[in-house]
Amino acid sequence: MIRVSVYYPASGGEAFDMEYYRTKHMPMVQRLCGAACKEIGAERGLSGGAPGSTPTYAAVGTLLFDSVESFSTAFGPHAAEIMADVPNYTKIEPVIQISEITL
Amino acid sequence: MIRVSVYYPASGGEAFDMEYYRTKHMPMVQRLCGAACKEIGAERGLSGGAPGSTPTYAAVGTLLFDSVESFSTAFGPHAAEIMADVPNYTKIEPVIQISEITL
Repeated sequence: MIRVSVYYPASGGEAFDMEYYRTKHMPMVQRLCGAACKEIGAERGLSGGAPGSTPTYAAVGTLLFDSVESFSTAFGPHAAEIMADVPNYTKIEPVIQISEITL
Repeated sequence: MIRVSVYYPASGGEAFDMEYYRTKHMPMVQRLCGAACKEIGAERGLSGGAPGSTPTYAAVGTLLFDSVESFSTAFGPHAAEIMADVPNYTKIEPVIQISEITL
């Protein structure tokens, strides 16, 4: 199983509409990717390790797929439509990481 | 519910012993934190968004707790013992983030 994580850095102080992200954007991604997308998740950054510190990321979105190939096949054809929705919730340029789930 | 994410940057090219991390370190953290720790997870970075690119993080560890208070209470008393185990699997200095799970 692999996790695609989309990290939105908090450093620029840009706004992030979490309500739109969790109720509109992520469900849209799941619908477009179909059954290949096993799970969607979203989180809002609260702090770094020290209470009250600034979190590295304002928000993180996650998608689970069986494999990198499954992700590419499902996401690729809809990438343009998905990316076009990003300005509806933030101006932040995300950092993307693909990881293998080991635990 | 909150997620504590421990990000290990890949940029320095340091080694990371994932087998030790997933079978020894993370279970130790869960045991020390007790019932307050609802779930542990670990992932190995494969790439950035583009196939073959370098991932931002060599590894990511995650812990779920009911609240920041619950995490602080459970983790705080064992922080020194947990940190002392880090050199057993990597020299990478981790970045920690605490997030609220919203989806």
